[in-house]
Amino acid sequence: MAKNLYFYDEGDGKNKRLLGGKGAGLCTMTQLGLPVPAGFVITTEVCKKYYDAGGKLPDDLMKDVRAAVGKLEKTSDKKFGWVENPLLVSIRSGSMLSMPGMMDTILNLGLNEETLAGLAKLTKNKRFSLDAYRRFIQMFGKIVLGIDAQKFEEVLEKQKEKVCAKTDQDLTTEDLQNIVDEFKRIVRRETGADFPSDPWKQLELSISAVFKSWNNKRATEYRNFYKIPHDLGTAVNVVMMVFGNMGEGSGTGVAFTRDPATGERGLYGEFLFNAQGEDVVAGIRTPLKIADLKEKFPEVYSQLVDIAKKLESHYREMQDVEFTVERGKLYMLQTRAGKRTAQAAVKIAVEMADEGLIKKEDAVIRVEPPQIDRLLHKHVDPKAKVKVIAKGLNASPGAAVGKVVFDSEKAKEMNANGEKVILTRPETNPDDVGGIIAAQGVLTSRGGATSHASVVTRGLGKPAVVGCESIKMDVGAGKFEVNGVTVKEGEIITINGTTGEVILGEAPLVEPKMSKELLKLLSWCDELKRLQNWANADYPRDAKKARELGAQGVGLCRTEHMFFEEERLAIFRLAILEENPERRKDLLKKLQSFQKDDFKGILEIMDGLPVVIRLLDPPLHEFLPKYEELLEDVVTGRLKGMDKKELEAMEKLLMQVEDMREMNPMMGLRGCRLGITNPDINEMQVKAIFEAACELKRDGKNPKPEIMIPLVGHVNELKVNKEQLERVANEVMGSSGVNVEYKFGTMIEVPRAALTAESIAEYAQFFSFGTNDLTQMVFAFSRDDAERKFLFTYVEKGILPNDPFQTLDRDGVGKLMRIAVEASRKNKKDLEIGICGEHGGDPASIEFCHEVGLNYVSCSPFRVPVARLAAAQAVLKEKSDKERYL
Amino acid sequence: MAKNLYFYDEGDGKNKRLLGGKGAGLCTMTQLGLPVPAGFVITTEVCKKYYDAGGKLPDDLMKDVRAAVGKLEKTSDKKFGWVENPLLVSIRSGSMLSMPGMMDTILNLGLNEETLAGLAKLTKNKRFSLDAYRRFIQMFGKIVLGIDAQKFEEVLEKQKEKVCAKTDQDLTTEDLQNIVDEFKRIVRRETGADFPSDPWKQLELSISAVFKSWNNKRATEYRNFYKIPHDLGTAVNVVMMVFGNMGEGSGTGVAFTRDPATGERGLYGEFLFNAQGEDVVAGIRTPLKIADLKEKFPEVYSQLVDIAKKLESHYREMQDVEFTVERGKLYMLQTRAGKRTAQAAVKIAVEMADEGLIKKEDAVIRVEPPQIDRLLHKHVDPKAKVKVIAKGLNASPGAAVGKVVFDSEKAKEMNANGEKVILTRPETNPDDVGGIIAAQGVLTSRGGATSHASVVTRGLGKPAVVGCESIKMDVGAGKFEVNGVTVKEGEIITINGTTGEVILGEAPLVEPKMSKELLKLLSWCDELKRLQNWANADYPRDAKKARELGAQGVGLCRTEHMFFEEERLAIFRLAILEENPERRKDLLKKLQSFQKDDFKGILEIMDGLPVVIRLLDPPLHEFLPKYEELLEDVVTGRLKGMDKKELEAMEKLLMQVEDMREMNPMMGLRGCRLGITNPDINEMQVKAIFEAACELKRDGKNPKPEIMIPLVGHVNELKVNKEQLERVANEVMGSSGVNVEYKFGTMIEVPRAALTAESIAEYAQFFSFGTNDLTQMVFAFSRDDAERKFLFTYVEKGILPNDPFQTLDRDGVGKLMRIAVEASRKNKKDLEIGICGEHGGDPASIEFCHEVGLNYVSCSPFRVPVARLAAAQAVLKEKSDKERYL
Repeated sequence: MAKNLYFYDEGDGKNKRLLGGKGAGLCTMTQLGLPVPAGFVITTEVCKKYYDAGGKLPDDLMKDVRAAVGKLEKTSDKKFGWVENPLLVSIRSGSMLSMPGMMDTILNLGLNEETLAGLAKLTKNKRFSLDAYRRFIQMFGKIVLGIDAQKFEEVLEKQKEKVCAKTDQDLTTEDLQNIVDEFKRIVRRETGADFPSDPWKQLELSISAVFKSWNNKRATEYRNFYKIPHDLGTAVNVVMMVFGNMGEGSGTGVAFTRDPATGERGLYGEFLFNAQGEDVVAGIRTPLKIADLKEKFPEVYSQLVDIAKKLESHYREMQDVEFTVERGKLYMLQTRAGKRTAQAAVKIAVEMADEGLIKKEDAVIRVEPPQIDRLLHKHVDPKAKVKVIAKGLNASPGAAVGKVVFDSEKAKEMNANGEKVILTRPETNPDDVGGIIAAQGVLTSRGGATSHASVVTRGLGKPAVVGCESIKMDVGAGKFEVNGVTVKEGEIITINGTTGEVILGEAPLVEPKMSKELLKLLSWCDELKRLQNWANADYPRDAKKARELGAQGVGLCRTEHMFFEEERLAIFRLAILEENPERRKDLLKKLQSFQKDDFKGILEIMDGLPVVIRLLDPPLHEFLPKYEELLEDVVTGRLKGMDKKELEAMEKLLMQVEDMREMNPMMGLRGCRLGITNPDINEMQVKAIFEAACELKRDGKNPKPEIMIPLVGHVNELKVNKEQLERVANEVMGSSGVNVEYKFGTMIEVPRAALTAESIAEYAQFFSFGTNDLTQMVFAFSRDDAERKFLFTYVEKGILPNDPFQTLDRDGVGKLMRIAVEASRKNKKDLEIGICGEHGGDPASIEFCHEVGLNYVSCSPFRVPVARLAAAQAVLKEKSDKERYL
Repeated sequence: MAKNLYFYDEGDGKNKRLLGGKGAGLCTMTQLGLPVPAGFVITTEVCKKYYDAGGKLPDDLMKDVRAAVGKLEKTSDKKFGWVENPLLVSIRSGSMLSMPGMMDTILNLGLNEETLAGLAKLTKNKRFSLDAYRRFIQMFGKIVLGIDAQKFEEVLEKQKEKVCAKTDQDLTTEDLQNIVDEFKRIVRRETGADFPSDPWKQLELSISAVFKSWNNKRATEYRNFYKIPHDLGTAVNVVMMVFGNMGEGSGTGVAFTRDPATGERGLYGEFLFNAQGEDVVAGIRTPLKIADLKEKFPEVYSQLVDIAKKLESHYREMQDVEFTVERGKLYMLQTRAGKRTAQAAVKIAVEMADEGLIKKEDAVIRVEPPQIDRLLHKHVDPKAKVKVIAKGLNASPGAAVGKVVFDSEKAKEMNANGEKVILTRPETNPDDVGGIIAAQGVLTSRGGATSHASVVTRGLGKPAVVGCESIKMDVGAGKFEVNGVTVKEGEIITINGTTGEVILGEAPLVEPKMSKELLKLLSWCDELKRLQNWANADYPRDAKKARELGAQGVGLCRTEHMFFEEERLAIFRLAILEENPERRKDLLKKLQSFQKDDFKGILEIMDGLPVVIRLLDPPLHEFLPKYEELLEDVVTGRLKGMDKKELEAMEKLLMQVEDMREMNPMMGLRGCRLGITNPDINEMQVKAIFEAACELKRDGKNPKPEIMIPLVGHVNELKVNKEQLERVANEVMGSSGVNVEYKFGTMIEVPRAALTAESIAEYAQFFSFGTNDLTQMVFAFSRDDAERKFLFTYVEKGILPNDPFQTLDRDGVGKLMRIAVEASRKNKKDLEIGICGEHGGDPASIEFCHEVGLNYVSCSPFRVPVARLAAAQAVLKEKSDKERYL
C-alpha cells in the first residue's frame, strides 16, 4: 500500500513524479543535512485519488496528516492550535513539472484568535502577529473559501488611505486589527459563516483547495500551452512556518548558484531584511544584492555559499533557491534547476564539465539548439525600453536597424550612399535579391517561414520579420500603417527577427560573439556526432562563413541566384528569348565566364571538401519580366499611342512571356526537365564548373565538385542528363589535361524519386533530399500560398502538430525518406545521402535524419552551429534513456 | 542438336517462334491434309546463327538445304536446274509476329537461260516463262544484289511506252525478251558480273538476303514502333512454285473465313484469273468477289469453303488465307489470323463462342478494349473521301460536324438557334463548360490528353481533338489558319476524335450502336469480372447514360460543375465575395435548393446503387473573373476616365481577386482545406444531399449517398470535416424523420494520404483513389502545363514509357496505391476502395486496380463498356498463362 505522505527526511528526492518538484527538493536538501524547516509532503497519488473520488480527500488521509503533524510538534516544542507556542504551517503545492505561479500557497495556517494572542506574546510583537493573521485570512479566504481577492484588497487600500500610509509597512498595529476585523466580516458576509478557527479544519480545507487548484482555469490553460499531461497531479507540502519578517535579524531571499544571465560562477540573487517571500516578488522595496550579505550577514552568506556548492555537486546543475532567515537562522525553502539565458546555459554547461561536475555529453545535451541560434545573431539589448508597434513571424533571427524603404532599387541606391535600410515589402520575389543584399533586414506583410523573403534572409543570415499582417502597406504612397502609427519611407525602424517584433526608431543592438565556451561545446559536439554538417552556400562569402562556423562541406550551391545579379540577368533574359541558336550560344558563353568565377571562388574556399552544385532549377519564366506588369504596360502603351515599333516589341515580349507562363510553375518545366528540353544551359554550367575545378587542380588545390541534377522523378531523367553532362565534363578535363575528383547525383525531392530510389541509385553517386519540395508534393501544399492561406490555421487548430516546412513530417515525408534510403542502399551500401532543405537546420528534423542514417545535413551557414549541436544530441538521445535528460 | 530446317509435314505448327508465322501455318495446313505445295522452312534459329556469325550462313546449312531440295525433287518428278522439268521455288520470309510487307520474297527461283527454255517447252508458253524470268531477275536483282529497283522499273516502263502497252499484260513475248536482255545488262553494269545462273548459288544468296532483310531499315523501324523484340529473327520458307498465271484455268486469291468488316459468317475475299499474288496487291485489274467463284469455279469454291471450316475449327479463329489455282488445282500458300474491324471482332468472337468453337472466356479476351471504345461513338464513314487539314491529339473519341465558333457565349447562342457548332479555342477553362455542352465537339490548339477540354469532353462523351498545334488561331479576327488553309468563324468542319483528324467541310458520319453481340459479350464480362464498374456522373443525364452502359454505381459526382451553370455562377460569385455573414448565408441558401435538385436527380436515377458525391474541390478563385482580364479593364478604365464609382468597384474586385490568387492553385486552398477555412459551403452541400436523399426515401426510393471529402493529407483534416458534416447530416435526417444509408469517405489523391492510409482509414468508410492528382503530385507534373511543355517530349524520347495521366504509373503511383491499400485494410478488411481518376477507364490501369484488390473502377459513362471488358480481361489474364493469348 502506497504511503499518503512522506517526511522530508524519508522521501526520495529523485521521485518528482510522486512528490512534486518542491517536495522532492525539500527531501533532498533535508537529507543532505541542509537547514530545512520540518515538514512533509502529501503525494501526487493522493491528488489523483482526490479526483478519482470526484473531489474528495481519501478517507485515511487526515488520520495520517494528524499523525504527521503530531510528529512535527514533537520535534519543535510547538503544538498545533496551542496558545502557548502555536505550531503554524504553510501549505504549498508542487507538481512534477514547474508551473510557476499557477497553483496556490497558503501561509501562516494554524492562526486563530487564541493562537494569535499566543504568537504575539511569544514574539513580543503584536503587529507582526496581526500582519501574519490578516495575510492568512486573506489567502485562505481567496483560495479555500473562493472569495474575490479584490474585496480584501479594497479593505487594505481603504485603511492605508485613511491613515495616509504609503506601504503596508506603514500600517500600525491598530490599523491591522481593524483590517483583521473587517476581513472577518467579509468572510461572514460572503460565506454565511465565521472564519474557521479550528486549525485542523483549516488544514483539511487547505489541502483540498490545493488539489482543486490543479484544475483551475489558468493551470489547465498553462498545461495545454506547454503540453504538460493533465494527469500528473500536484503534491501538497505542509511545512513549519519560519518568518523572515521578525525584525532586522530576519529576512528572505532568492539566489542562483551561478549568474543566470552570464553564467559566471558565484552566488547571484537578492535579499530583503524583515520581509516574507511575497514581498520580494512584489518588488515594493529595493532588495539587496546577495553579494552584499557578505558584509551585512557574514555567517548566513558563508552558509549559503556552502549550501550552493553542496547543491550543485548533488544536482550537478545550477540551482535556483529560496530561503528565509528567522532571527539569524537560515532556512532553505526551495531548490530547483535555475532558468538561464542562452549565454549562461553554454558557459555553465561547459564550465561544469570542466569542473568535473558533469560529463561532456551532459554539457552537450543541456544546451538547447535555439539557445545557440540566439547567440549567433545581433540582438536588441534586452535592457532597452523600446516601442513595439507590430509583431510578425520571426523568420530569420537577429536584429537590424535601418530606414524604411519600399523598393529594392532604392535600397541598393541608399546602401551605395552608406545608408542603412530595412527593405519593407508586401512580399519579396527573386527580383528583390539585390535589394535584400543591400538591406540590413527585411520586413514583409505577407509570406510565411518558407516564403522567398524568409528563405533568402536565412540564407544570407540577415534578420527578417515576415507575414506581419497587421501592417497595411501603401507602397505607392511610400508609407505603412499599423495600429494607428504611420511610418513613412525614410523613417528608422528596428526589426527583431529573433522575436518577430517591429520597433519604432533605433533600438540599441548587442553584437553576437562565439564565446570560448561555445567553441569548446561545439568541438565536443563534433567529437560525438555521426552526421556531418554541411552548409548551403550560393556565394564564396557564404562558403567562407560556413567554414568558419564548422561546415564540413557545401550541401547545396544554388546556381540560379548567380543569374539574378544585375549584369547577368540582362544577358540571361536575352538568351532565354533568343531564337537564333548561334546568338543564344554566344550569350550563354558570356554567362559561362561569370559562372566559372563563381564556382572557382567557392571550390577554392572549400578546398578539399565536397561542394554540391545544383544545376539550374527554376522555370525560365522566373527570369523574365512579370506577365501582369507587361500586360499593364502594353495596355497603357496601346491607349496612349506609344511608338509603334516599341509597342510591337513589347507585344512580342508579352506573347513570349505568356507562352512560357505556367498554371503551377512549381510542378512545371524546371529542374532536370529543362536539362532535357534546353540542354545547352546545363552544359554551359557543367563546363564552367569543370573549367574552374581544373584550373584549381592545376594550381595544386583539391576541388571536389558534386554535380546535382534537380527534380528527377524517373531514373531515365537522371540517366539522360548524366550521360550528356558527364561527356561534357570529360571533354573539359581532357582538354585541360587534369582529372578532378567529382560525383554526379540527384535531389530526391519528387515523391516518385523516393518511391523508385532503388533504380535511380543505379545512376547516382549521391542523393540529396530536397525536403522543401518533397514536403510540398507529399502534402500538396504550395509553399508560396499555403502558409498565408491556411497552414497557420491548421497549426493553430491542431490539425497539424507543426508547420511541416519548419519541422520534418515524420509520418509522411519521413516515411518516404525511409523508403528511399532503404531501397537505394540495398544495392549501394555506401551511397552518400544528405538533406539540403530548410530542415537541415532544424533540430527535430536533424534527429530524424540521424535515425534514418543519412550522411550529412546541410543548412544555412548561420545555422551550422545549431545543427552541429543537434547532430551531437541525436547521438546522445539515441544512446541513452531519454528520461535521464528530462 | 537442333535441326536447321523442317518439312511442312513434320514441323510443329504451334511453334511460330521457331518456324515463323508463315512456316507454322504451312506446316499446320499440310498436316491437316490441305493442298499445300511441297516445301520446307529454315528456322529462326538459323537466322540467329547467321547474325551471331556476323552475317554468314552456318557451315552445315547448304548441305541440309541440298538434301531437302533433293527430297522435293523426288516428290515431284522435277529437278532443280533440270532443263526437262525444272524445279522452281519461292523464297519467303516469315517471323513469329506478323510484319506485313516489311521483309522480302523472291519468286521463280531456279530459272536461268536453260531452265527458261525448258519451262517454255513444258508449259508451251514462252511468254509466261519469260514473264516469270523477268520477275525473278527483277526481284533477285533488287533484294539479293541490292540494285535500285527503279532501274528495272524504268526499263519496263520504257518498253511499254515504246509499244504503247497499257499494262504488263499487253507486253508481247518479244517485248519481254527485250526486257530480260536489258535487265541482264543492268545486272552486269551494276554488279560487274553476270546474273548468277547456277540455281544453287541463287538459292544460297537468296536465303542470306532474306536473313539480312530482318534488319533492314524499315523492318527495324517497324519493330521499334510496335515494340517487337529485335532478336526474334525470321524463318525462310523454300516452297515449290505454283503458278496462277498459267492461263484462264489458273488464278490467285486472298480470302477471309468471315467478313473482316462486319464479322458476317462466310468466305469473303477476292480472286484474279490468270495472275500471280502480286497482281492482286497491285490493284491494276479489278478482281472478282470470292462469292463469284461459286459460279465460275465451283469445285475450287466448295474446296475453299471446306478448307475455311477446317482451318477455323483448328485455329478456333477467323483466318486470312492466300491461295493459287494452277490449271484448276488449288494450292494454299498462307494462313494467319485475320485482321478485322471492331464490329467484326465483337461479332466473330461472340458467334464463335455461340458455335462452340471457343469458350466465352476466349471471346472476352479476344476483343480489344479500344475496339469497344470505337464502337460506341459516331465515326466518320470510312468510305468517304475527306480533306484532312490538320491532326491533333485524339482526346475524346467520336466524330462531330459543326460550324467553327471561337467563343462559348456564341456557341450557346447558336446552339439555341438550332445550329450545330464546334467550339474552337486555344484551350478551354471552366467558364467554357456551357459552351462545350452547347457544342457538338471541341477543337483546341493547346492542351494534352488530360487538359480541361479533354477531361470535360470525355466526361460528356463529346468528341474532341486537342493540342492541334499546327493550327494558328486568331480568335480576335475570328479565324484560324492551318497548312495554308484559312477557316473563318461559321465555316463547317468535321473533327474526328477517334483519330485526331480535323476535316474541312461536312464529312458523312456513321451512328454508333450496341449490337446484340456486344451486349452479349459485355454480359459475359459481367459474369467474369471481380471489379465493379462505376461511372463518373455530374448530372442526372450522365447517371442515366451510365446505367444504360452498365455502371453499378456513381464513383464520382463532381459538384463544382453544378456551380458553373449560368444562373448559379453569379450567385456563387456574390457569395464568395460577400463579407457580411448573414448575406452570405442567404446566398448559399439559394444555391442549396439548386443543389438539392441536382442530387435528387442523380440519386433517383441510381436508386439502390451507391453515389459518391465529392464536396466542392477547386479553389474559390476559379469561380471569379480572371485576374488578367480585370487588370486590363482597370488599366483601361483608369486611362479612359471611367465613371469613378464603377472604377472603384472594379478596383475593389481586382484587389479581392488578387488576394485570392495563388502561385500554384493545384496545391492551394481547395478541397478539404476549404472545408476547414470556409465550412459553410460544405455544410450547404451536405444539407442539400441529405434533404434530397430524405425526400426520396420518403417516396419509397433507396438512395445511397456516399460523401467524399477531397484532398485529405492528414487524418485530422478528415476527422474535423467528417465530424462537422456528419452532425449536419444527422440534423437533416432528424428533422425529416427518416434515415438514409450513407457513408463518409475520402479521396486518396495526396501522397501523404496514401502514406498514412492506416490512420486515415480509421475515420473513413471508403477510399477513392484520385489518381489524376496523385499522379500530379507523385511526379510533380502539373496537368495544366506538363503535356504541353515537356511530357510529350518525354514519351517521344522514351524517358517515360507512356503518359502517366493516361496509363497509371505502376512503379511510382501504383506503389503508393499498394502501400495505401495494404495499410488501410490492415485494421479494416472490408474498406470499400475504388478509383475515380481518368485511369478508371484505361484497360492497363484497370488491370492494375484488379491486381491491387480495389472494389471498383469509376470512369466516364461512355467508357464503362470498355472498362467492363478490361475488368473481365484482368481476371482472365490473372488466371491463365498469358502466352496462350498472344
